Amino acid sequence: MNFHLPTYKEPDFNQEPFLSAPDAQTVKVTIEGVAPEHYHGLSIYPEYFKIQGQWILARESRMDGVPVLKSDGTIQVVEFRNLKVGDQVIVGRSEDGRQGIYVYARGFSSHEASADLFAFRSGRSRETAYSKDYNDLYDLLNYEKDHGYIVWVLGPAVVFDYDSRLALSALIANGYVHAILAGNAMATHDLEAALFGTALGQNTYNQQSPPNAHYHHLDLINKAREAGSLDQLIEKESIHDGVVYSAIKNKVPLVLAGSIRDDGPLPPVIANVYQAQDEMRKHTRKATTLICLATQLHTIAAGNMTPAYTQKNGEIRPVYIYCVDIAEFAVNKLKDRGSLSVTTLVTNVQDFVVHLRNNLVSS
Amino acid sequence: MNFHLPTYKEPDFNQEPFLSAPDAQTVKVTIEGVAPEHYHGLSIYPEYFKIQGQWILARESRMDGVPVLKSDGTIQVVEFRNLKVGDQVIVGRSEDGRQGIYVYARGFSSHEASADLFAFRSGRSRETAYSKDYNDLYDLLNYEKDHGYIVWVLGPAVVFDYDSRLALSALIANGYVHAILAGNAMATHDLEAALFGTALGQNTYNQQSPPNAHYHHLDLINKAREAGSLDQLIEKESIHDGVVYSAIKNKVPLVLAGSIRDDGPLPPVIANVYQAQDEMRKHTRKATTLICLATQLHTIAAGNMTPAYTQKNGEIRPVYIYCVDIAEFAVNKLKDRGSLSVTTLVTNVQDFVVHLRNNLVSS
Amino acid sequence: MNFHLPTYKEPDFNQEPFLSAPDAQTVKVTIEGVAPEHYHGLSIYPEYFKIQGQWILARESRMDGVPVLKSDGTIQVVEFRNLKVGDQVIVGRSEDGRQGIYVYARGFSSHEASADLFAFRSGRSRETAYSKDYNDLYDLLNYEKDHGYIVWVLGPAVVFDYDSRLALSALIANGYVHAILAGNAMATHDLEAALFGTALGQNTYNQQSPPNAHYHHLDLINKAREAGSLDQLIEKESIHDGVVYSAIKNKVPLVLAGSIRDDGPLPPVIANVYQAQDEMRKHTRKATTLICLATQLHTIAAGNMTPAYTQKNGEIRPVYIYCVDIAEFAVNKLKDRGSLSVTTLVTNVQDFVVHLRNNLVSS
Amino acid sequence: MNFHLPTYKEPDFNQEPFLSAPDAQTVKVTIEGVAPEHYHGLSIYPEYFKIQGQWILARESRMDGVPVLKSDGTIQVVEFRNLKVGDQVIVGRSEDGRQGIYVYARGFSSHEASADLFAFRSGRSRETAYSKDYNDLYDLLNYEKDHGYIVWVLGPAVVFDYDSRLALSALIANGYVHAILAGNAMATHDLEAALFGTALGQNTYNQQSPPNAHYHHLDLINKAREAGSLDQLIEKESIHDGVVYSAIKNKVPLVLAGSIRDDGPLPPVIANVYQAQDEMRKHTRKATTLICLATQLHTIAAGNMTPAYTQKNGEIRPVYIYCVDIAEFAVNKLKDRGSLSVTTLVTNVQDFVVHLRNNLVSS
Repeated sequence: MNFHLPTYKEPDFNQEPFLSAPDAQTVKVTIEGVAPEHYHGLSIYPEYFKIQGQWILARESRMDGVPVLKSDGTIQVVEFRNLKVGDQVIVGRSEDGRQGIYVYARGFSSHEASADLFAFRSGRSRETAYSKDYNDLYDLLNYEKDHGYIVWVLGPAVVFDYDSRLALSALIANGYVHAILAGNAMATHDLEAALFGTALGQNTYNQQSPPNAHYHHLDLINKAREAGSLDQLIEKESIHDGVVYSAIKNKVPLVLAGSIRDDGPLPPVIANVYQAQDEMRKHTRKATTLICLATQLHTIAAGNMTPAYTQKNGEIRPVYIYCVDIAEFAVNKLKDRGSLSVTTLVTNVQDFVVHLRNNLVSS
Repeated sequence: MNFHLPTYKEPDFNQEPFLSAPDAQTVKVTIEGVAPEHYHGLSIYPEYFKIQGQWILARESRMDGVPVLKSDGTIQVVEFRNLKVGDQVIVGRSEDGRQGIYVYARGFSSHEASADLFAFRSGRSRETAYSKDYNDLYDLLNYEKDHGYIVWVLGPAVVFDYDSRLALSALIANGYVHAILAGNAMATHDLEAALFGTALGQNTYNQQSPPNAHYHHLDLINKAREAGSLDQLIEKESIHDGVVYSAIKNKVPLVLAGSIRDDGPLPPVIANVYQAQDEMRKHTRKATTLICLATQLHTIAAGNMTPAYTQKNGEIRPVYIYCVDIAEFAVNKLKDRGSLSVTTLVTNVQDFVVHLRNNLVSS
Repeated sequence: MNFHLPTYKEPDFNQEPFLSAPDAQTVKVTIEGVAPEHYHGLSIYPEYFKIQGQWILARESRMDGVPVLKSDGTIQVVEFRNLKVGDQVIVGRSEDGRQGIYVYARGFSSHEASADLFAFRSGRSRETAYSKDYNDLYDLLNYEKDHGYIVWVLGPAVVFDYDSRLALSALIANGYVHAILAGNAMATHDLEAALFGTALGQNTYNQQSPPNAHYHHLDLINKAREAGSLDQLIEKESIHDGVVYSAIKNKVPLVLAGSIRDDGPLPPVIANVYQAQDEMRKHTRKATTLICLATQLHTIAAGNMTPAYTQKNGEIRPVYIYCVDIAEFAVNKLKDRGSLSVTTLVTNVQDFVVHLRNNLVSS
Repeated sequence: MNFHLPTYKEPDFNQEPFLSAPDAQTVKVTIEGVAPEHYHGLSIYPEYFKIQGQWILARESRMDGVPVLKSDGTIQVVEFRNLKVGDQVIVGRSEDGRQGIYVYARGFSSHEASADLFAFRSGRSRETAYSKDYNDLYDLLNYEKDHGYIVWVLGPAVVFDYDSRLALSALIANGYVHAILAGNAMATHDLEAALFGTALGQNTYNQQSPPNAHYHHLDLINKAREAGSLDQLIEKESIHDGVVYSAIKNKVPLVLAGSIRDDGPLPPVIANVYQAQDEMRKHTRKATTLICLATQLHTIAAGNMTPAYTQKNGEIRPVYIYCVDIAEFAVNKLKDRGSLSVTTLVTNVQDFVVHLRNNLVSS
């Protein structure tokens, strides 16, 4: 039942076509933020590039980034908008090694074992049997708690409900959350629940809507803006429960990315979305497990920047991604990226989070 | 936190328009299975009819049935197809008492209290806060276990998963299930899981599909047909877990209604759907709580025949209906009937059933 | 742009393993309605059985039926419940010819061409580009109108709306509909619209609900039961539009299968679901195109009994199946059967039917 | 059948409680971007404020904005983040006039007429009859084409399909589109279709995925970034069809708001979401009709900033909002704001747009 990290098997470059393959070609960037023609686009998988006769692994990857060869011989992954004039971009679109570029999709032993199940697993839906997925996740999180970096991506639905909001807070307090990526709405609703007991004006437990409670939402934002920061809001208003409170108290980084749907916004929300991407990527590049709950926008944003592998203490290990949503369409959006590491669960995130708390946190 | 049955407040017929209202009119059926023109159609609510100067409560109700005045002065509820020549059908379509017909929608004190929440509750969705609904349901089931009649309506999804199938079995074994209404598929998948560990050929725990496992479904049906009954199948094949096994072992009635989608079918499946309705109604007329899981067909069928109230030891009490499905559209179908007693939860029934087991059955 | 029927390429049985394969084995039925152990279960594909040294094609197929060798050397497809004592059932579960059983999935040239797209097409959703599917369907229906047998499977949603109800009627009147499989609800709502302008009490054009219009549903059923048949109802009430009217006027067979959800039912509704299956299969065995609209129950029932091929004037040709529903989950249910001939469209059937009328029927 | 603008009936302020109501109170902003306590939050409805004895209508509204009394006696609507120190914010949360604040929800005659249908219309779903809604919309758009300002809010799905992309282009070319609000994805997929015939690498007509076509997406973005603007891209690459091309050619403003999900982005995408809100609001404040297609993010963003009325040449008229999505949950999100002017259609936007083109643009 306990979790074992699958071992990564390096490709054997002492054979063809690797031996006689040429070095990967590079072309210099001449316009800021624009890649040279035939640039190579990165995938979620480990990618090796032949540089001066050696096959070098890009230390990180992210989908839709381009590989830039640095003067120290390393390969860095850069988004288009961050390309600088003079950057040496690797060009070439074959992936089998013959152009000095090798995309390696099957490095983890356990993944190979499940490869023949791919067709079957592609049909995950509300009727898939999730018992083993839950059990595997409990084992994984108990391992990752101490050995990994667990990044949670949260939509607002998870704090609308009394139990799930407290369950998530308990997971934070008990070390199962190492970073949170979310938006203005999740934080606002959570803090409204802390201060007024409501979310968007509706009581998170008894579902009642007190008179004028629709003002709570804006009142909370206004108070936060007045306080100047979430730390100060929490202190000033003596807030002592919830996701934001637990994150701040337990020093769990909380990245709040702005969107055009925002009211307010709360003080720490990042208005520039590409700056927000950079802040998010600081955490996804460290992520060993990513858990995405009921948010298509943030899930796809985080999913696109998270590779199928990461390096931890010099070892290459898989990154596990979970995506939980009540709509098949939503979870399939992420699964379509083709990663074998994505596990989708079709259910209400309230129930999902409460199950996790019940199985991970002793009461 | 504990459950209290709301008390029923009889209408006060010692006032107008009841006092001066005429007796309800009746017209005789002249064609088998056809109601006279202007027949009165029944609702889910308690309905009173003025008969020889007295206001008489129809002992039962069901939506879309018609009230028939029997020679002993009682009012019986009859489906169109069951009308006999000579039956005295009550006619009239006003419901306020003036025609001797009174539909009484607000007899239960606690319902009145929640009346002003109706607009708000109509918007239940995946984002509704369900904590209190769960807690209320735990309390209700602990009460009903000893004092009520809990009818479960089961779609096949509930037995596709290892944990939820066992959770439901535990609820049966512990007295939380008094009757089960389902179809050929639920019973077949459950028995396939008992015999082969798969449902439709897929392992209910590890999601794997062994070679030729798609035959398990038909093999199970064929074995059951050979055994002649589910009791004999269970004995012959030494089946010892699951919903069907638990129902039979605990003498919980199991009504399996046929549909055009059926393979086989299993021996006890009722081929004639109107005969199946009659068998189902034997249980819904006794029901004090109805729990419908992930089946639109059976849920609407059972919902249509279940009134908002029932009489238990001479007392009139509400019937509680829960409808759980992952699609808002599906739960709204039942809610549209307008009963205040219907509580809808939008989630995966696997999680729902496991939560119930965890909170009701001591391990 | 015009439709061309793909040609069927017979398997070449003059090669191994076919030449040295043994005859298919048969075992006699000893219990009514029960297949012998190791019975062979049929698929949607053409299946050949080696009988006395010759490879014989089962003339028809249906999923989950069993092949019975008749005394005249033909192979008949029989449902479990219809097996008679003494029937010679073919046994064996390998499908590659070595047991005298050969399942032939790639007989149609055009299907092979699209085979390498299978992975991609498996992901059909609301975001799939449907332009070509519409155009192909227009061409197909213009061909099938004269050369095929077009069976429509209708859920009630298609008659809730004014335009789509009339559009479907126009398709019937213009020869694009050769048989209709549906349930009590579709026919009832359609006739209610013809008589009262409402469906379930709601005006099909302006969406308004006149006072007491919820009685229209039962009134229509009651009138139909009084009339004794739909023909007589239409004459007696001077009904002159809609799906049922158009079907009867144009002598298009209408099979109405009963379900436990039915009110009434209407006179011709078949109460026994297995008898209803038999009536449905009379049409699906002739079907060259099957169009299923917004009904999970009837779609899966009809889909299960419809093979991927049919024989028309001695020629083997593909059967085209279209499944239209607004939910990905619903259309995937049918697609999961694996037939390359199923084309799914995720949209509201109202719009689908109106598009068909606009492009097929000159106004 | 033709469209008539409902007339607006001014409230009669020559009666109580308006006559004896006090002036609305104001409090000065003391912290940049923070409203004073008890600020009044605006709704989508016309709101009147008593200022120096006169009832003044706020010229515009937007949900969640606050009313600021300017030195010239007008009331301006300001978002929290745009509040300046010294701004006179109106305070008070009663809405019936007694505090000098009057929210007027029933100013349009035709809306009153439909008020008693509200309960019924709240249940719009895939099974609602949409014929009249389509016809009303055709009439409305023919009126608005010349007399209104039609703002379209577009999700990417609308350009994935060949026919719907061209249909939308035809609507632009024929004057039915006065402004477009969208994101990076819609514009990128549309331009990819113009240049490569694919969207996200998949042919928009025949659904095939040519080898390496997944690069088209990034190639298009890279070319656009190289060109420096969409105008220059269109010229340089000789693009001559699609939504972006038609908008630019017909001088229809196109606001592209950034999101954390963006690749690239394209040159004109606005990185700062609050600046993007400001650009969007320049159009929603002029909007007389808003049509939102298959995008929850942009729809809610635009919906929140669009009031139920607007002033056009001194006249107050309603703003019509249409929201089209295949998921009931998505359209209900917008409807929940309570505006009677929102018409929701549950269908695939491909079919919706093609219907509009077929009925509005002569071929």
